[in-house]
Amino acid sequence: MTEPSDASRPEPTAALLIVGDEILSGRTRDANLQHLAERLQTVGVPVVEARVIPDRAETVIAAVRELSSRVDYLFTSGGIGPTHDDITADCVAAAFERAIDVHPEARARLERHYAESEHALNEARLRMARIPDGAELIDNPVSAAPGFRLENVYVMAGVPRIMAAMLDQVIPTLKGGGPLLAETVRCNLPEGEAAEGLRRIAEENPTVGVGSYPKYGSGGFQLSIVVRGRDAKAVEAAAQDVETLVRELGGQPERLAPGEPA
Amino acid sequence: MTEPSDASRPEPTAALLIVGDEILSGRTRDANLQHLAERLQTVGVPVVEARVIPDRAETVIAAVRELSSRVDYLFTSGGIGPTHDDITADCVAAAFERAIDVHPEARARLERHYAESEHALNEARLRMARIPDGAELIDNPVSAAPGFRLENVYVMAGVPRIMAAMLDQVIPTLKGGGPLLAETVRCNLPEGEAAEGLRRIAEENPTVGVGSYPKYGSGGFQLSIVVRGRDAKAVEAAAQDVETLVRELGGQPERLAPGEPA
Repeated sequence: MTEPSDASRPEPTAALLIVGDEILSGRTRDANLQHLAERLQTVGVPVVEARVIPDRAETVIAAVRELSSRVDYLFTSGGIGPTHDDITADCVAAAFERAIDVHPEARARLERHYAESEHALNEARLRMARIPDGAELIDNPVSAAPGFRLENVYVMAGVPRIMAAMLDQVIPTLKGGGPLLAETVRCNLPEGEAAEGLRRIAEENPTVGVGSYPKYGSGGFQLSIVVRGRDAKAVEAAAQDVETLVRELGGQPERLAPGEPA
Repeated sequence: MTEPSDASRPEPTAALLIVGDEILSGRTRDANLQHLAERLQTVGVPVVEARVIPDRAETVIAAVRELSSRVDYLFTSGGIGPTHDDITADCVAAAFERAIDVHPEARARLERHYAESEHALNEARLRMARIPDGAELIDNPVSAAPGFRLENVYVMAGVPRIMAAMLDQVIPTLKGGGPLLAETVRCNLPEGEAAEGLRRIAEENPTVGVGSYPKYGSGGFQLSIVVRGRDAKAVEAAAQDVETLVRELGGQPERLAPGEPA
């Protein structure tokens, strides 16, 4: 998709840093990028980069520094558990040259959690209460161990259910560019037939982005053409151009209802 | 997981660059990283970074330059179709300052493919035959449009089935460090109980990596502890240490058979 260009209103951006050898080794398939991207899009904060890196301190520190300086909001997922390879909190502290220690409130939450559990708050688990100086806790309603925000970095769990619960709290605090509007036109033209016309439509409608997504399913192939932008009139005008193009090429355009899976 | 350290035998590394707004927007969930990582692991080429970036020329060019200089093999997925936002081939050419044009052999393959199809090889589709000077084609047995290798960059389709078919050809040509061996011990201990012992085992067995992966399933929680390395004896010794630890903590270690899903 070409990016909508609207230089007059620079929009806030986000990145996701996924910390975990288990993702890089193929053992686990990341599920957090998709969820984060969808949620952030509803408040007008596009994810402009996602990066998966190993549990190596120097790599994590360098990536936190680089990405946090380039985007408005950096999210991290993974590496905040109780084991020796859970180094994200320490690396974020190091990236901002902050001290890190067991945080009294985080410790209290873990104490309450383990008091009701059959397990003890041992030294390894207490690692999960290590929070950099000056950071703000992010509640973990699932398993108590909090995430945190330091500067523009949101340190969150890798477990998708916990990550999603933490994100629920963060989303209302973000200053976004307003929701990105999308209109989807579905048709049964092959992408190569529509490509030239879509290029023209993208050029003629510079404030919107035009993307095309072919899918090969049981009913033959299907092309979803998505127009995205912030200006409802511009998005609608471009979507109508797409419908006209599809008809000119002998296809049957079908406009998807908002929210319908494209 | 802590990385196995074996300075005497530096192992080749790989990175994956995923080009596509549709992944960053959450519209599509990437499936290529997991497949690539698993396949490369069998030949001893660990993926040390994966990066998802938008279809923006300057971003793609910069990422190709940076990553290709840092790893032995850089794979790209996505952005080689017929539409205006398919810019990967041109960006890879630009990253290496090569000219790019329609490649006679790539064109011939598309001509044969479309001669047998109801569709024509129009100008948009001919874009898929644009190959940088000096690049080597990678066959596409699914839809003809080839990928290519330029220097240490392997430019591949984003559609997982095509990406996998291209990878089948590339894998035998890679010089890997030999397969990474893994032994998995499964138990029902919570991660926080095992954490301290695993840290000790990781320290005492510096040539292997020790990772722990908790999972909450219908049968309560389950912890898979994975020991990875190249030296079979060292891996086995560390796996036995893990079994001993699990027993000491009152758990029941269960060694998974090689290839059994951990």
